[in-house]
Amino acid sequence: MAGQLLIKGGKVVNDDYSVVADVYVEDGVVQQVGPNLHPKPPTGLLVLDATNKLVIPGGIDTHTHMQFPFMGSRSKDDFYTGTKAAIAGGTTMIIDFAIPQKGCSLIEAFDTWKSWADPKVCCDYALHVGVTWWSNKVKEEMKSLVQSKGVNSFKMFMAYKDLYMVNDEELYEAFSQCKELGAIAQVHAENGELIAQGAKKMLAMGITGPEGHELCRPEEVEAEATQRAITIANVINCPLFVVHVMSKSAARVITNARREGKVVYGEPIAASLGTDGTNYWNKDWAHAAGHVMGPPLRPDPSTPDFLMNLLANDDLSVTGTDNCTFDTCQKALGKDDFTKIPNGVNGVEDRMSVVWEKGVYSGKMDENRFVAVTSTNAAKIFNLYPKKGRIAVGSDADIVIWDPKATRTISAQTHHQANNFNIFEGMVCHGVPVTTISRGKVVYEGGTFNVTAGEGRYVSRPPFPPYVYKRVRQRDQVCQPVPVKRAPYTDAVSATPITPQ
Amino acid sequence: MAGQLLIKGGKVVNDDYSVVADVYVEDGVVQQVGPNLHPKPPTGLLVLDATNKLVIPGGIDTHTHMQFPFMGSRSKDDFYTGTKAAIAGGTTMIIDFAIPQKGCSLIEAFDTWKSWADPKVCCDYALHVGVTWWSNKVKEEMKSLVQSKGVNSFKMFMAYKDLYMVNDEELYEAFSQCKELGAIAQVHAENGELIAQGAKKMLAMGITGPEGHELCRPEEVEAEATQRAITIANVINCPLFVVHVMSKSAARVITNARREGKVVYGEPIAASLGTDGTNYWNKDWAHAAGHVMGPPLRPDPSTPDFLMNLLANDDLSVTGTDNCTFDTCQKALGKDDFTKIPNGVNGVEDRMSVVWEKGVYSGKMDENRFVAVTSTNAAKIFNLYPKKGRIAVGSDADIVIWDPKATRTISAQTHHQANNFNIFEGMVCHGVPVTTISRGKVVYEGGTFNVTAGEGRYVSRPPFPPYVYKRVRQRDQVCQPVPVKRAPYTDAVSATPITPQ
Amino acid sequence: MAGQLLIKGGKVVNDDYSVVADVYVEDGVVQQVGPNLHPKPPTGLLVLDATNKLVIPGGIDTHTHMQFPFMGSRSKDDFYTGTKAAIAGGTTMIIDFAIPQKGCSLIEAFDTWKSWADPKVCCDYALHVGVTWWSNKVKEEMKSLVQSKGVNSFKMFMAYKDLYMVNDEELYEAFSQCKELGAIAQVHAENGELIAQGAKKMLAMGITGPEGHELCRPEEVEAEATQRAITIANVINCPLFVVHVMSKSAARVITNARREGKVVYGEPIAASLGTDGTNYWNKDWAHAAGHVMGPPLRPDPSTPDFLMNLLANDDLSVTGTDNCTFDTCQKALGKDDFTKIPNGVNGVEDRMSVVWEKGVYSGKMDENRFVAVTSTNAAKIFNLYPKKGRIAVGSDADIVIWDPKATRTISAQTHHQANNFNIFEGMVCHGVPVTTISRGKVVYEGGTFNVTAGEGRYVSRPPFPPYVYKRVRQRDQVCQPVPVKRAPYTDAVSATPITPQ
Amino acid sequence: MAGQLLIKGGKVVNDDYSVVADVYVEDGVVQQVGPNLHPKPPTGLLVLDATNKLVIPGGIDTHTHMQFPFMGSRSKDDFYTGTKAAIAGGTTMIIDFAIPQKGCSLIEAFDTWKSWADPKVCCDYALHVGVTWWSNKVKEEMKSLVQSKGVNSFKMFMAYKDLYMVNDEELYEAFSQCKELGAIAQVHAENGELIAQGAKKMLAMGITGPEGHELCRPEEVEAEATQRAITIANVINCPLFVVHVMSKSAARVITNARREGKVVYGEPIAASLGTDGTNYWNKDWAHAAGHVMGPPLRPDPSTPDFLMNLLANDDLSVTGTDNCTFDTCQKALGKDDFTKIPNGVNGVEDRMSVVWEKGVYSGKMDENRFVAVTSTNAAKIFNLYPKKGRIAVGSDADIVIWDPKATRTISAQTHHQANNFNIFEGMVCHGVPVTTISRGKVVYEGGTFNVTAGEGRYVSRPPFPPYVYKRVRQRDQVCQPVPVKRAPYTDAVSATPITPQ
Repeated sequence: MAGQLLIKGGKVVNDDYSVVADVYVEDGVVQQVGPNLHPKPPTGLLVLDATNKLVIPGGIDTHTHMQFPFMGSRSKDDFYTGTKAAIAGGTTMIIDFAIPQKGCSLIEAFDTWKSWADPKVCCDYALHVGVTWWSNKVKEEMKSLVQSKGVNSFKMFMAYKDLYMVNDEELYEAFSQCKELGAIAQVHAENGELIAQGAKKMLAMGITGPEGHELCRPEEVEAEATQRAITIANVINCPLFVVHVMSKSAARVITNARREGKVVYGEPIAASLGTDGTNYWNKDWAHAAGHVMGPPLRPDPSTPDFLMNLLANDDLSVTGTDNCTFDTCQKALGKDDFTKIPNGVNGVEDRMSVVWEKGVYSGKMDENRFVAVTSTNAAKIFNLYPKKGRIAVGSDADIVIWDPKATRTISAQTHHQANNFNIFEGMVCHGVPVTTISRGKVVYEGGTFNVTAGEGRYVSRPPFPPYVYKRVRQRDQVCQPVPVKRAPYTDAVSATPITPQ
Repeated sequence: MAGQLLIKGGKVVNDDYSVVADVYVEDGVVQQVGPNLHPKPPTGLLVLDATNKLVIPGGIDTHTHMQFPFMGSRSKDDFYTGTKAAIAGGTTMIIDFAIPQKGCSLIEAFDTWKSWADPKVCCDYALHVGVTWWSNKVKEEMKSLVQSKGVNSFKMFMAYKDLYMVNDEELYEAFSQCKELGAIAQVHAENGELIAQGAKKMLAMGITGPEGHELCRPEEVEAEATQRAITIANVINCPLFVVHVMSKSAARVITNARREGKVVYGEPIAASLGTDGTNYWNKDWAHAAGHVMGPPLRPDPSTPDFLMNLLANDDLSVTGTDNCTFDTCQKALGKDDFTKIPNGVNGVEDRMSVVWEKGVYSGKMDENRFVAVTSTNAAKIFNLYPKKGRIAVGSDADIVIWDPKATRTISAQTHHQANNFNIFEGMVCHGVPVTTISRGKVVYEGGTFNVTAGEGRYVSRPPFPPYVYKRVRQRDQVCQPVPVKRAPYTDAVSATPITPQ
Repeated sequence: MAGQLLIKGGKVVNDDYSVVADVYVEDGVVQQVGPNLHPKPPTGLLVLDATNKLVIPGGIDTHTHMQFPFMGSRSKDDFYTGTKAAIAGGTTMIIDFAIPQKGCSLIEAFDTWKSWADPKVCCDYALHVGVTWWSNKVKEEMKSLVQSKGVNSFKMFMAYKDLYMVNDEELYEAFSQCKELGAIAQVHAENGELIAQGAKKMLAMGITGPEGHELCRPEEVEAEATQRAITIANVINCPLFVVHVMSKSAARVITNARREGKVVYGEPIAASLGTDGTNYWNKDWAHAAGHVMGPPLRPDPSTPDFLMNLLANDDLSVTGTDNCTFDTCQKALGKDDFTKIPNGVNGVEDRMSVVWEKGVYSGKMDENRFVAVTSTNAAKIFNLYPKKGRIAVGSDADIVIWDPKATRTISAQTHHQANNFNIFEGMVCHGVPVTTISRGKVVYEGGTFNVTAGEGRYVSRPPFPPYVYKRVRQRDQVCQPVPVKRAPYTDAVSATPITPQ
Repeated sequence: MAGQLLIKGGKVVNDDYSVVADVYVEDGVVQQVGPNLHPKPPTGLLVLDATNKLVIPGGIDTHTHMQFPFMGSRSKDDFYTGTKAAIAGGTTMIIDFAIPQKGCSLIEAFDTWKSWADPKVCCDYALHVGVTWWSNKVKEEMKSLVQSKGVNSFKMFMAYKDLYMVNDEELYEAFSQCKELGAIAQVHAENGELIAQGAKKMLAMGITGPEGHELCRPEEVEAEATQRAITIANVINCPLFVVHVMSKSAARVITNARREGKVVYGEPIAASLGTDGTNYWNKDWAHAAGHVMGPPLRPDPSTPDFLMNLLANDDLSVTGTDNCTFDTCQKALGKDDFTKIPNGVNGVEDRMSVVWEKGVYSGKMDENRFVAVTSTNAAKIFNLYPKKGRIAVGSDADIVIWDPKATRTISAQTHHQANNFNIFEGMVCHGVPVTTISRGKVVYEGGTFNVTAGEGRYVSRPPFPPYVYKRVRQRDQVCQPVPVKRAPYTDAVSATPITPQ
């Protein structure tokens, strides 16, 4: 169990400002923040020296798929290795997805995923739930999940035709129910029909390698679906969260909507911020296939900088990873047909470093915005704030001591993920997590883990996050159309209806 | 039959420049254009004095629905009154739509519409054909229509759920077949699902009047579908023609696509260029209902100017009308429920004057661009150029003598349409058609008609219009992706596929 | 002097979240924030019941001109009436401008303004300083002002030709010095040359009324200068603050720059958020003239909503007022010539209510964003945070108890400004400041003031605000170009230079 | 002298459509265009077989600087080699610039340039005239040039501080005079102040090579000036022509202005359409310096495609070259300081091939649009149409027989320009001019010239080109503001003006 902890002399960095201060933790919760603390704990006190280091809220990865059964395989990182890797990278909470097959129960899916996670997780976690079909039962189960299971977000797929894809009517229904329940609607935004057609076309042209994966779903396919999802959500006045923003054009759609006041959030991921789709043209098949994910990375090499600028400017809001690792052997399921390559890349361990390097070290954002986009905003959107996402009295002691001057080189040789491939291989990153604290316990320090499978907890998320829903509810009250008052229309007898031939 | 005709002393206005010249016509075709012509015709010569007037190519209305059986009624203007009205307004050709019910034959629909039109038309006409469902039979019939019936354009509806609406897969198939055949794909771009849901919602809120028609389908519903149609067409490299562009946001989508090199054309109509959607809030129900059409006019009063600027700049290409008139008695079918108001407005007679007044008189475009957007571009896109759309040796003598200084006031009291309502009521327009000549015959002069039902001709349109398809075919040749050359991937044994739980 | 104060039961609203809590204040500083506080103050305790009310950081008005000698007159509100009005409206700090004539000392201007303010202010204040000409002396004085006078912002005028206007070279020099000193460059962004020419043209056309004021400087004149200022600042990597953003097009320029990562902040004002330029066409001259300010309000009535959406989205950052009141008698200096109407409008009292009504009540932003844009962001940008702009332990007790349900009607009859005119006359606003506390003293409550002239303090602002400069400095370190390494070029003898004819 | 000429069997390509036809030429003018011509010329008939070839209007290069004394040198190509090279490339008319020094006579400059050109030109030419300073004399001389010398375009420089640069007031005056005279205002759009400052900064940082040329004037420096010029021109309602559009951001500014109805034309050049600014980082100094021109080519490699898309879409209008060649020896004047490298590149010979290759062969535009952007639009804008820019009865017989299937490889080894460097070195171009005809004389065929120095003619251009000015004049008539009618304002005595301290 977590004991008493004093983090001394670091610069405490929250999303609004930074200050040199000590942090005292007891019972897994921050008790004091201030200069020169001298707490008198009931028992022993562990003191960590953070001089010349930053003391930041632990990262929240809004998008992972641990041990996900998908495309004929199962993602390599399970909830144990996945959360260990997270911790090593400075992330202290993940939000994974429970995704039912079409026709299957959402609650059962939730319970299944929770049963996988609970015995294995080394840090806190939560679960989004997928809505992959529609019926009254689905609608009822969404309600139960919100009211009894601590779920406040549901993801709908506009891609993966015949597997997870829902049509516009189903989207409309699912968004409506999210709105009713105070949940956040999430979308995987790609036009699944176009992908299906494009894949057929590429294979017919003899393009069977990983480059076909991108060619069959160019970025306009992502932008189109993003525009459509926003349009549907907006007529319902339902808040929308677009997962894995991969392209400039999709990001532009989101930022334009935000400028018009629409309540929509965009989540770029470590992959789209840290690398690009030129890799699909790599001559080494395993390298190219190792980057296959959906939506794909984009060949335009200015994409990562573009997304990072928007993230710095709050046009995009949070960062996830879509961590869903498959090793080369699994990827080889698609060695003769790119449509069979299991989709997914790593990220849960490296997200914080990639964002620091490309965002903070580059001068695009400062350390406070870094905290916002790696932790605070996620906590606000998913209604965990200020328990998560902030270092303040009363907050969970999910804390990272971060060395902004140190560097490390990312490599599959040294990473802690289960996979044998890393899309950031060789990237030198400034910004290294020195110590990771989960609920007041030092779980990682200087390369050494101190974790037990299952010691992370499932975190319930209440509906109607104020950060998201205050505006929404106010609009519902004041922005409703009213009928025009007219005298009843009686001048004309109606025509007799005809029946078309 | 048309005799010999000399138009003297006018300023001949084509889309590229204007010049004072005489025009000599024989056998319905322009024989000479030049200064001081003194033709020696075999028989008598009719001389028209066009001094101080403009001599312009007759207008082509790319979008009409004469005697259209729709929404339980039939549009008031049939092919006789409709084409007479066209002629009175300076339009010498219309393109109407043959629209089969779902499940029905396209060829039968074409034949039906043609059988309606042939005995009645007073000017030339052609027919677009609707694709309202999909099957191999539909695909075959499209081919027959192109190869045997002179059809080179097909319209797909993204709205009118359960009636005409097709889904993304059907759109993809229809666009692909258009491309294969060298036809132009047209779309009614609105998200039909959102309209259906929105209409239910409005009625549930007690909004039953014409304002509900706009409220249930705000402009983003149009913009979304426009974006989607462009995306689908572009992956197929199929040219797209977006009918009735009604909103700033949809127009912006089109112009952005064009800037990126996509082959897409936008057709604003007389209604969207000449009036706006504030009329739906008019206290007089009949007035409000008289403006009901789909997509609706937009409440933003700066819409017409915005669209006209884009039309002047070639971001939008041609003007139609969607002329589909219902009188007040017919509109009253929806007096208690806006969803039952037959959709449609007038325009075929007034289009030329409205575009002149709002476009040329205002200084947004000059007389040459006026000719381009009312006639020439339509002829180019639908492969009628230079027989139609230009005054030059060899062109059809579809000619209008236009007085740019004269004015007229539009009114249902004086118009020649069968309808008792005019959406431009009271608009004073500079620019009046003085004389209209169809295939060399003076069919209208100074307010007097000289027409016989059925003397207009059906005009066949060959496929692969060069104006549209030259770029498309070149791209097919040079812009195809090629597979990356890699050694066969043999390093890894594939994983054994699993079956998801 | 301020005593001990307990604000009980309110909802404490900071920019990141809201929580029901008590606030305990002593020595003008917040000592505790939490539930059910029972402080034991040394002497008496004043308890304020804030149940069902919001407890918010006092507003910071980033832009006022009290008793400003300008255009042949002096603005009506001096530092006494001006700050009283501020307090009545929920604003507890203003930042005014010391503006030297061309050729005159900046330090003297600063001292002059301070000597006007110190004996009169009823709340805290600071001073931006104008740079209206350029010389080494100006450069030196800027340094002194930053290092010895607590100034960290300088404003340059791109308009007011021959009076305050500086040219591009001077802008470049001034921005460079700001950057060097860690100050924020501010600009009044309008093209002064075009205004001068436009004014001449309007007068020559016989347009002498207030509408001429807008006609001679349409919004593109503002957008142009905004673009230019951003371009100049960006090549220097100098942070820029655009005061009084009045138009959609200027705002768009700012937001586009921010998306690209440029460090630029936009300040819309109460006037541009609450009313529009159609007022210049009002038939009552005094009404029209009462709205004259530079840059003018814009005739496009959708401007305020547009700006508010951007403010909600953090594309725009803070709100000021440009409060610079002239009464009708003063405005009448320009009754025959709009160029002589003293420029300026009210706002310091009504800003908070206007932003609440148009921003929060409308559903465009929530209460937390309201705090951000009326107080917190200003504090961050001008380096006053977290002393100002936040309710937290250690912050200045500048606090407002705000009743979000109450309404008030704005009127010159009842306002507390010295002016006889109010541009928001008749506007009904939800959101009323019930109690205003300045440094722990209740200075306004339920309509009654408890103020003494001079009890406000001048607030020094240190240079290099971290919120602004962290990114800037990092870029200076890592984003510098490096020369290409080439062998010396020796292949060619240079040509012999010629002298042009 | 030119005799009788029959071009048989080619596809005659005008900007509106293409048709297989013969072309008969006599007296330097097209006499007939049609199928199977059998002219009976008074004397011998030269027959050219154009079967399977295109017959296009000769190119018009809107922007050259032959034998230009500039930056201490004189451009290598004089009016003889320059126009010979033009002819070899399929261009039959150039428009050069007469540019006076500050303080010097415009008419003298015009006469000087004309005296250089007349004895040397091998094809038709005209002269734009520079306005590099302002005075009443300049104003008067502009009038004389328009009324007596056939000049209808004047160019103002916003860059080249202290040499050619004019300030905003001078721009305003020059634009106003252009408007008054019916001339077109042209601008070199770069912020000269920023370039001067940037150059100093680069040199101070030790960056002395050609890369410094681009680094000191990034594309925002071009975009800013473009925006400013458009803003100034628009308040005057003066048509504007932006020469050498080099960057995406400047092009965007132009296209946005056009969408809003502003009368502005953009001229990309062969260089910006065919290569990019990565060349400045080339390790070979001579190569890098060989690309130095102002504004510079842009490092973003997607620039050429972007500009070509806009050119295809009529967002940009014409193509020039800014042909101003300096050989390596001349470039070496700046071997230790990039600010001394004479600015200029080739293009006059290769423009047509580059536009064909990048525009037509790529599928971005068709052959008709190619004719529009290489010839027709220039003729329309500069009031030469339809004498130039079209193959029609009565047009000048400036004609090129173009082989769209043939290819050639551009090289300084084989080109006909006087320079020893070619920025398109090694580019393989489809589209080769086989035969060039100038005013009915075959001047180039199959690689052989048949030219005499001085046989080209100076072409007068009348003011008020209808293509440009029709809209402008109409706006002047109908879009003027009118004063608001108000009762005289008498309620208030004016305040007594004060004098600011």
